[in-house]
Amino acid sequence: MDQDKLRMLLEHLQHGKTDIEEVMERLKDLPYEDIGFAKVDNHRELRNGFAEVIYCAGKTPTQVQGIVQVMRRDGASILGTRASKELFKSVRAIAPEAVYYEDARCIVIDPKKKKQEEPLIAVVCAGTSDIPVAEEAAVTAETFGYPVDRIYDVGVAGLHRLLGEMPRLRQADVVIVIAGMEGALVSVVGGLVDRPVIAVPTSVGYGTSFHGITALLAMLNSCASGVTVVNIDNGFGAAYSACLMLKMNERRINH
Amino acid sequence: MDQDKLRMLLEHLQHGKTDIEEVMERLKDLPYEDIGFAKVDNHRELRNGFAEVIYCAGKTPTQVQGIVQVMRRDGASILGTRASKELFKSVRAIAPEAVYYEDARCIVIDPKKKKQEEPLIAVVCAGTSDIPVAEEAAVTAETFGYPVDRIYDVGVAGLHRLLGEMPRLRQADVVIVIAGMEGALVSVVGGLVDRPVIAVPTSVGYGTSFHGITALLAMLNSCASGVTVVNIDNGFGAAYSACLMLKMNERRINH
Amino acid sequence: MDQDKLRMLLEHLQHGKTDIEEVMERLKDLPYEDIGFAKVDNHRELRNGFAEVIYCAGKTPTQVQGIVQVMRRDGASILGTRASKELFKSVRAIAPEAVYYEDARCIVIDPKKKKQEEPLIAVVCAGTSDIPVAEEAAVTAETFGYPVDRIYDVGVAGLHRLLGEMPRLRQADVVIVIAGMEGALVSVVGGLVDRPVIAVPTSVGYGTSFHGITALLAMLNSCASGVTVVNIDNGFGAAYSACLMLKMNERRINH
Amino acid sequence: MDQDKLRMLLEHLQHGKTDIEEVMERLKDLPYEDIGFAKVDNHRELRNGFAEVIYCAGKTPTQVQGIVQVMRRDGASILGTRASKELFKSVRAIAPEAVYYEDARCIVIDPKKKKQEEPLIAVVCAGTSDIPVAEEAAVTAETFGYPVDRIYDVGVAGLHRLLGEMPRLRQADVVIVIAGMEGALVSVVGGLVDRPVIAVPTSVGYGTSFHGITALLAMLNSCASGVTVVNIDNGFGAAYSACLMLKMNERRINH
Amino acid sequence: MDQDKLRMLLEHLQHGKTDIEEVMERLKDLPYEDIGFAKVDNHRELRNGFAEVIYCAGKTPTQVQGIVQVMRRDGASILGTRASKELFKSVRAIAPEAVYYEDARCIVIDPKKKKQEEPLIAVVCAGTSDIPVAEEAAVTAETFGYPVDRIYDVGVAGLHRLLGEMPRLRQADVVIVIAGMEGALVSVVGGLVDRPVIAVPTSVGYGTSFHGITALLAMLNSCASGVTVVNIDNGFGAAYSACLMLKMNERRINH
Amino acid sequence: MDQDKLRMLLEHLQHGKTDIEEVMERLKDLPYEDIGFAKVDNHRELRNGFAEVIYCAGKTPTQVQGIVQVMRRDGASILGTRASKELFKSVRAIAPEAVYYEDARCIVIDPKKKKQEEPLIAVVCAGTSDIPVAEEAAVTAETFGYPVDRIYDVGVAGLHRLLGEMPRLRQADVVIVIAGMEGALVSVVGGLVDRPVIAVPTSVGYGTSFHGITALLAMLNSCASGVTVVNIDNGFGAAYSACLMLKMNERRINH
Amino acid sequence: MDQDKLRMLLEHLQHGKTDIEEVMERLKDLPYEDIGFAKVDNHRELRNGFAEVIYCAGKTPTQVQGIVQVMRRDGASILGTRASKELFKSVRAIAPEAVYYEDARCIVIDPKKKKQEEPLIAVVCAGTSDIPVAEEAAVTAETFGYPVDRIYDVGVAGLHRLLGEMPRLRQADVVIVIAGMEGALVSVVGGLVDRPVIAVPTSVGYGTSFHGITALLAMLNSCASGVTVVNIDNGFGAAYSACLMLKMNERRINH
Amino acid sequence: MDQDKLRMLLEHLQHGKTDIEEVMERLKDLPYEDIGFAKVDNHRELRNGFAEVIYCAGKTPTQVQGIVQVMRRDGASILGTRASKELFKSVRAIAPEAVYYEDARCIVIDPKKKKQEEPLIAVVCAGTSDIPVAEEAAVTAETFGYPVDRIYDVGVAGLHRLLGEMPRLRQADVVIVIAGMEGALVSVVGGLVDRPVIAVPTSVGYGTSFHGITALLAMLNSCASGVTVVNIDNGFGAAYSACLMLKMNERRINH
Repeated sequence: MDQDKLRMLLEHLQHGKTDIEEVMERLKDLPYEDIGFAKVDNHRELRNGFAEVIYCAGKTPTQVQGIVQVMRRDGASILGTRASKELFKSVRAIAPEAVYYEDARCIVIDPKKKKQEEPLIAVVCAGTSDIPVAEEAAVTAETFGYPVDRIYDVGVAGLHRLLGEMPRLRQADVVIVIAGMEGALVSVVGGLVDRPVIAVPTSVGYGTSFHGITALLAMLNSCASGVTVVNIDNGFGAAYSACLMLKMNERRINH
Repeated sequence: MDQDKLRMLLEHLQHGKTDIEEVMERLKDLPYEDIGFAKVDNHRELRNGFAEVIYCAGKTPTQVQGIVQVMRRDGASILGTRASKELFKSVRAIAPEAVYYEDARCIVIDPKKKKQEEPLIAVVCAGTSDIPVAEEAAVTAETFGYPVDRIYDVGVAGLHRLLGEMPRLRQADVVIVIAGMEGALVSVVGGLVDRPVIAVPTSVGYGTSFHGITALLAMLNSCASGVTVVNIDNGFGAAYSACLMLKMNERRINH
Repeated sequence: MDQDKLRMLLEHLQHGKTDIEEVMERLKDLPYEDIGFAKVDNHRELRNGFAEVIYCAGKTPTQVQGIVQVMRRDGASILGTRASKELFKSVRAIAPEAVYYEDARCIVIDPKKKKQEEPLIAVVCAGTSDIPVAEEAAVTAETFGYPVDRIYDVGVAGLHRLLGEMPRLRQADVVIVIAGMEGALVSVVGGLVDRPVIAVPTSVGYGTSFHGITALLAMLNSCASGVTVVNIDNGFGAAYSACLMLKMNERRINH
Repeated sequence: MDQDKLRMLLEHLQHGKTDIEEVMERLKDLPYEDIGFAKVDNHRELRNGFAEVIYCAGKTPTQVQGIVQVMRRDGASILGTRASKELFKSVRAIAPEAVYYEDARCIVIDPKKKKQEEPLIAVVCAGTSDIPVAEEAAVTAETFGYPVDRIYDVGVAGLHRLLGEMPRLRQADVVIVIAGMEGALVSVVGGLVDRPVIAVPTSVGYGTSFHGITALLAMLNSCASGVTVVNIDNGFGAAYSACLMLKMNERRINH
Repeated sequence: MDQDKLRMLLEHLQHGKTDIEEVMERLKDLPYEDIGFAKVDNHRELRNGFAEVIYCAGKTPTQVQGIVQVMRRDGASILGTRASKELFKSVRAIAPEAVYYEDARCIVIDPKKKKQEEPLIAVVCAGTSDIPVAEEAAVTAETFGYPVDRIYDVGVAGLHRLLGEMPRLRQADVVIVIAGMEGALVSVVGGLVDRPVIAVPTSVGYGTSFHGITALLAMLNSCASGVTVVNIDNGFGAAYSACLMLKMNERRINH
Repeated sequence: MDQDKLRMLLEHLQHGKTDIEEVMERLKDLPYEDIGFAKVDNHRELRNGFAEVIYCAGKTPTQVQGIVQVMRRDGASILGTRASKELFKSVRAIAPEAVYYEDARCIVIDPKKKKQEEPLIAVVCAGTSDIPVAEEAAVTAETFGYPVDRIYDVGVAGLHRLLGEMPRLRQADVVIVIAGMEGALVSVVGGLVDRPVIAVPTSVGYGTSFHGITALLAMLNSCASGVTVVNIDNGFGAAYSACLMLKMNERRINH
Repeated sequence: MDQDKLRMLLEHLQHGKTDIEEVMERLKDLPYEDIGFAKVDNHRELRNGFAEVIYCAGKTPTQVQGIVQVMRRDGASILGTRASKELFKSVRAIAPEAVYYEDARCIVIDPKKKKQEEPLIAVVCAGTSDIPVAEEAAVTAETFGYPVDRIYDVGVAGLHRLLGEMPRLRQADVVIVIAGMEGALVSVVGGLVDRPVIAVPTSVGYGTSFHGITALLAMLNSCASGVTVVNIDNGFGAAYSACLMLKMNERRINH
Repeated sequence: MDQDKLRMLLEHLQHGKTDIEEVMERLKDLPYEDIGFAKVDNHRELRNGFAEVIYCAGKTPTQVQGIVQVMRRDGASILGTRASKELFKSVRAIAPEAVYYEDARCIVIDPKKKKQEEPLIAVVCAGTSDIPVAEEAAVTAETFGYPVDRIYDVGVAGLHRLLGEMPRLRQADVVIVIAGMEGALVSVVGGLVDRPVIAVPTSVGYGTSFHGITALLAMLNSCASGVTVVNIDNGFGAAYSACLMLKMNERRINH
C-alpha cells in the first residue's frame, strides 16, 4: 500500500465510506521505511502489539542513530536492548530525552505512561548474577506500560526465602522466572502459582552449566505445568510475551 | 493440615469465626492423598488453576486405574495424555463415561462444559505428521473448557495456505503453533499476529532434524517477538499454558 | 600372592610371628580367580568395603551362573543388578535360596543381616516412573546391611508433598535423591538438609530430557551445596557410595 | 596441464623423444608451483572453473604476498577472502591495483569484466548483521564476472518486506539466502521461487543460536525443496557454487 | 484468488484484455485444495518448478491414496518417496499404472517423458550401502525428465576406481555425490570437476559416524569449492536442486 | 518467624516452657537478611551444616563487601571462593583479619579451629595443572575445620607414583580425586580404597578434553564402585560434601 | 596393476604396440573388477599391504557371495567382519572351507599360514562385555598371519589383575587395548609399556557412556604417550594397523 | 625401591650375584623425583621408550625451569612442547644450549644424535595453516633421533599435488597425516600406502569445523584401513607413537 492509497483510505473514512475496523485492518499491510542498511518496520505496533525494538548488539552507533531518528520522527516509544553505555551516549546526542538503565543495558525514549497498579508482572530471579537479565525484562515491561514487582535472590537453595515471598507472587498476573545453573526455581514457582510462568534461562554458572544450556533444558523439562521458555538471557523476549498476554486481557475487558 | 484441622476450619467458617477468603487461602495448603505408588495431588486445581493431569506413558493400567478412581471420587475433570488404546480400555472398565481421542492419544472424563465462543485458542500446525501433537493440544484445551480453532497443514513451503487463513488467525486470543523439521512456521505466524504465540516443536523429520531438536532451537531463536516455547511434542503443556493465560484474563474481567 | 604364601602367612599369624593388622594388610593384595571368561575378584570386600556385585546386563545366563557359583562357594553375599526375571530363573536353578526383587531388577543371595535401626539411608524419588531406580538403590543398601526409608513421589510440582516428609528426611544420615526430567528435587532437598546428598538422574522424560542428560546436568549444577552425582539410572552406585559413607562412620565409632 | 600438453607428452614417448621413467614422473606432476610454504594450484581454473582463491585467515602477510605474486605473474584474477584491512595494505604494497571491500573483507585484483545484465544472482539477507556475509558472496560473484542483485534486511518477522521484493526475486537465476538466528527466511524464499536456492547460515544470534548451528540445522531441514546449504558464514562458497551453476548454463548455451 | 476471479482472469485472456505472461504471473497465487487432513498444493509446479512430491514416511495408506487421487485427477506427474512396498500396493489399487522402484523406495506415476541425452546428472556414490540414497536421487531426476549417469562404489579408499570414471564425470552438467562414513569422496570429486557438486551424506557407518552427522560435517567443511550440501539421506532433495539448476539452464536457452 | 516470635521462643526456653531440641528445630525456619541485591542466608549453618559460602565470581567488590559485613557481624566463619587478588584487597579493607590463598583463589576469615588429626580428607590430584582446583578443595575443608592430606601429581601415566602413596591414601576417611584430561586416576584410586571417593573433573587439557567434559564423563562411568562426581573445577563442592560426610560421622559418635 | 605391468604398458606404447588413447584410458584404470553392485579392489594387497576385507553389515547374502566368489577365484585370503551366523551359512554354501568365529562375528577363508611365534600382538580387554570386539581384533590379526596373546577381563577396578599380567604384556610388540565405560585401562597400560598402544573404545556401558563416546574421548585424551585410537567397536581396524606395524618391521628386517 | 636397595642391587650385579637382564627389569620400578609441585618421572625412558616430555602449556616459567634442571642433571634429552618464546627465554637462562623451534613451539635440549637415513617418518599436511602442528610432530621425531620427510600443502582439493609426491610417501616407514577442515587427506593417503598412518586432526577451519572435531570424526571414520588417530592438534603424540613403532622395529632387528 503506497502513501496515496493510504490517503485515499483515510479520506474514505473521513467521508463515511468505510469504517474504523476496515481501516485498522488495511493498515496492517502498511509498508516499512527503507533507510539503506535497514528497513524500519514502522507499523509493527499495529500488527504485533508493540513498536519495533532495537536489538543494539552488533549494530554501529551510526546505524542505531539512523533507526532512532526514523522511529522518533514517527513518535514511537523506543526501546534499545543490549546497549553499551558508549552506544547510549551517541543516542543521547540526537535524542536528549533518552534514558539509560545500566543494569538492564537498555536505552528508553518516551516510554508509555505507566498504567494503573494492575495487571502486574512479577519478575523473579534466583541469584545476584541473574539481575541484569531480570532488569532487561523489568525495564521492557515498564517501557510498554505495565507495572513490575521485582522479587530477587530467592533461589531454591534457601527455599524459605521464596516461600516468604508467596503473597507477592500470588498478586501477579504473569510471572517471569529467571535463573541460571540448574534453573530449579522455575519448577518450584510453577508448582505454587496458577498464573502463566515464563522461564528465562541465564548464562550464569560454570563448567557443565554450558552458558545456560543446562538451565534451558531443565526449564523445558519442568515437572510443573504452565511453564513456557525463551532463549538464554532473553529477558526482553519474556517481557514482550508477558505484555502480549496482558494486552490480550485488556482487549477482552474493553470488548 | 490433617482432616481434623480441615473440619475445624470449615466449622469456623460455618460459625462466622473466619471468612471465605481465609478458607480459600488455607485450602491451598491441603494435603495430597497417598495411594502407595503415588501421591494424588487433589487440590491442584485450587493451587495451579487446573486439576492434575495423568501423564500415562510409563504407568501400568493398574496405576492409572488407581489414580482415576481417587480423582473421580472427588469429582474432578480427568485428562489422561499419552494413553494407548489398550490403556483406555482398562480405564473404561472402571469409568464407563470415559471418552478416547485417538489422534490425540487422550482419555477424557467429565470435561468442563464448553464455555461460550470466546476466548479462543488457535491451534496451527505445519504438516499432516504434526496432527497428533496438535490434537493433544486441542483436546487438552477443550477439556479445560476453552474453544479451539484448528488450522492444519499450513507450512511455509506453501505460504499462500497460511496467508489464506489470516482472518481466522486474527480471531484468536492465543495462538499455539506446532511444527517439526525447521519450524519456520512459528516465525512467520509470530510476525503476523499481536497475540501470545506458544511454539511446540515436534519430532517430525529425519537426519539432522534430530527428533525435534532443530525445530526447538529454531523456535527459541525466532526473529519474531512474543514467542515462547515448550518441550518437543508437548502439545499438552502448550495448551495448559494457553488456558492459564485465558484464565488470568477471566479473573480480571470478573474483578 | 599365591595360595602357598597365603597359607604361610596365616601360619605365621597362628604362631605369633605376625599380627592381625599385618595379615589384613597383606590380604589386600590377594589374587582373583580366573574362570576363563571372567576373573572373579573374590577379595574385593576386603579391599573395597563390599563384595563384588554382578552387573548382569549383557552377560549370558551361563556366565552369571559361573560367577555365582564361585562367589557362593566363598560364602560371599551376592547381589546381581539389571537382572531380568529370566536370568533370575537360571540363577535359582543353581542357588535355590536366591530372591528376586522385581521392581529393582535385582537378584540377592544371602544378604548381610540387617543391622539395627541406624544409621539410616533415605531414598527419595520424584515420580512413579523413578521407582525402579529407587528400588535398585534401596535393595542394594539393604543387601549390604543398612536400613532404608523410602520416600516416593514427592516431586517439586507439588512442593507440599515434600515438605510434609521433612521429619523423615531429617532422620536420615545420608539422602539419595532420584529424579528424571529437570531433577529440581535434588536442589530443594539439598537446601533443606545437613546430610550428604547423592543425586541419581533417571532416564524418565521425553524430548529434551535426552534420556536423563538434562537431569544429570541440572544435578551437577545444583545451587545447593553438598550434592554429588552418579551416572544416569545408577541406583546401585548411589547406594554403594552411601554405604561406604556409613561404613567409614562405623570404623571411626569402633576405633 | 591441459589435455593438449598431455597428448604431446605421450606423443614424445611414442616418438622416442622421452622415455618411460620421465612420463611416469610427469604424469604424477600436474602443474602446481611449489613456493615452499604453499603449492599454488595455477591450473585450477582449467580444472575447477575458477582460479584459486586465497583464504587469508591464518596466513601471514608474507605468505599472502608470496601467493599473490605467483598468481599475478600468471595473470589470474585474484580474490582474497577473510582479509583484514592491515593485510590489504601489505598486498597493495606489491599490487597497487588491488581493491579492498571493507564490508566483505575481500581483496580483489583484476576481476573478470562484468558480463551483461544476465544471468543474475540474487543475494538476499535477513538482517543488518548478516550483511558482511552477504557482501562476501556478492563480491565473490562480481569478481567472477556475474551481476548481483542485493536484497537486504527482509527477515520474516516483517514478512511484508520480503513479499514486497518478490518481483526482484523472480528475476534472479540463482538465489543465495543468508540468515542467522532461526534461518526461517530460507524456507519462505524456497517456497516462493522456482530457482536453485543456496542457503548460508550466519553466526548471528546469541544463546541457543550456537554461533550459527541453529540456522544451519534449520536450513538443512527446510520444508521447501530446492535448497542446498554451505558452511556457517561461508558467503564465498555459496557464490562460488552459484557461479558454477551459471557457468554450466553458459556452456550449454554455447554448445 | 477465488474461483470467480480466476474465471474472470481467463475470460480477459480470451478476449484479449490481458496476455499470457500476466495470466502466468497471476496463477502463481492460486489456492490449494483442502482435503481435510492435507492441503494439496496443486500449482506448485507453476510456482516452484516441479509438482508437489509426496513424502510417504509417516502417512497412512489412506492419506497417500487421498493425495494421489487429487493429484492424478489434475494430471500431475506423481512421485512418492520413502514408500514401503506395502504402501505401493495400496497406491496401485487406485492407480494401476503406478510403478515401484524398490532400491529407491519410490512410487512413480506418469513421469515426464525422458528428455534428450543432455543435460545430464551424474549420481556418484562411495559404497554399496549408499545405493538406496543414490537410487532415490536417480529416480527423482528421471521422474522429472532428466537423464542420469550412475557411477557407484568409487570410494576414495581405492582412488583408482574413481579416477577411472573421470571421463564419465566430466560429461555431467551437475554432479550429486553420495557418501557415508567420512564423506571424503565429495572433496576429491569437488577438486576434479568444474560443475556444481551437491553432496548427500548418508547414515552409513557405525560408532562415531553418528548416523551421518560425521559425513555431513565433513561435506560442509570440504576444502573443495563449489560444493553444497543437503540433509542426511536426502537423495530426493539433491536431485530436486539439480533439476532446478538444469531447468534454469533451459529457461535461458529458450530465451 | 519474625524477631518477636524468636524472642518469645527463647523466653519460653528460659522459663522452662520448651526444651532445647524444640528450639533448635524451630530455629531452622529462621529468616534471611535482605540487603537489597542479596538475601544473606544467615542460619544456613544450622540448616545445612556449614555457613553460607560466597561464590565471588561475577559479584562486584561492593556486593562482596556487603555480604562479608553482614556475615562478620554475626560471627560466622567466612569463605569466599573464585576470588581474585583484587577482590581480596577490597575485603581486607573492611576485614583486616582476612587471609588470601592464592593457589586456591580463596578468601578466609576466622576459620573453624582445626580439629584433631582425624577424621582426615585426602586430596589427590593427577597433574601440576590440577593444583588450583585441589587447593580450593583443601582450603575449603580446612576452613570448615577438617585436616587435609595433599597428594599431588600422581597421574596414572606413571602408576608407580600413585602406588607409592597407597599408605597415605589408606589413612584417609574420604578421598577427593581431582583430574583433567581422561580422569583415569579416579578409577584407579576407586579400585584401591574402601572409602567414599568424590571425583572432581578439571578443565585441564586441550582439543577433545572439551574443557573438562571428557574427564567428567569418564568419572561418571568409572568402573570402580563408590565414586560420586561434582561439576567441573568444583573443588569447593567436593570438599563441602566430604565435610558433610565427616560431620554425619561425628553426630553418630556423639550420640 | 603392479609396477611391472605398468612399465610393460608404456613399453608397448614406446614400441608402437599400442596407441596414446589406449594408454590414457588404461592409466586411469587400475585393476578393480566391476561386478555391478560393487567394484572389487583386487590389487589392494599390493597397494595397501593386505587384501580387501568384506565389511558384511548392510550387505545382502547375494552381494557377499558375489564378492567372495571374485576374491576366491583370485586366491586371496578372505576375511568377512560383522557377519551374522545366517550370512555365514550362505557363504559356506559356495565356499565349504569357510570358517566362522562366533564371538568375533567373522568369516575366514584360507587365512595366511600362521607365522612363527613372533612378532606378537597382545589383545587386552577390560571386561567380559568387551570380548566380541577383542575377538574381532584377534581373529583379524591371526587371519593376516600374526600370533595373538589374549589378556581379558583386566579392568582397572581390580588393578592387581592387570599388574599380574605385566610379564605377558611386556612380551608383546604391539598392544591393542579394548575398553568401554571410562576406558581408563588404556592410560594405565600406556604408562606401563614401551610399545605402540592402539586403543579401541567399545559401546559397553549405559547412560553417559553414550555408546562408547565417553571411552573414545577418554582414550584420545590419555595422559599416557604412545596411544592412538580407532573408531568405537572397531576391533578390525586396530588389528589391521597393528599388522601394518609388524609388516613394516619385517620389510626392514628383510632389507 | 629406595636408593639403598638400588645400590645393593647394583653391587650384586658388580659381584656377579645377578645379571643385567634382572637389573634392567628391576630398574623399571625405580621411583620418581619429588620436587614439590611435580614428581619428575626420571626413568620413563626405560619404562616407556622415551624420556618424559614437558607439556609447557599452563606451567609457570619457574615450574618449567625446575623440571628442566632435574632432567638436565640426569643427562636426559629434553623436549618442551607448546612453549611460548617467552618461556624459552627463561629456559635458556638456565640451559644456554637450549634451542627454540618457533613454528613447532618446541624447546629442545640435547636431542638424540640423528640416526642414519632410515627408518623414515613422513609428515604430510593438507594446508599452510596445519604447519605448526606438523612441525610439532617433525621436531618431536627428530629430537627422538628419527629422520623426517616433510610433505606440506598437499590437500585433496588439488589431488595432483598429492599424487606428485607418491614416490616420497612410499619411501616412508610410518606416515603422519595432518589436516583440518574435513580431513579427507587421511583417507586418500590411507588408500595409497601400505604403511601405518597416524592421523592428526587440526583445529583449522571455521563454523562447523568445530575447532577440529569434524576432522577428528572424519578420520575416525576413514574408509581406508590402517589409520589410527590422536587428539586434535596433538602433533607430539603422533610422533611419539610413530617413534615407538620404529623402536619396536629396531628391537626386532637387534634381536
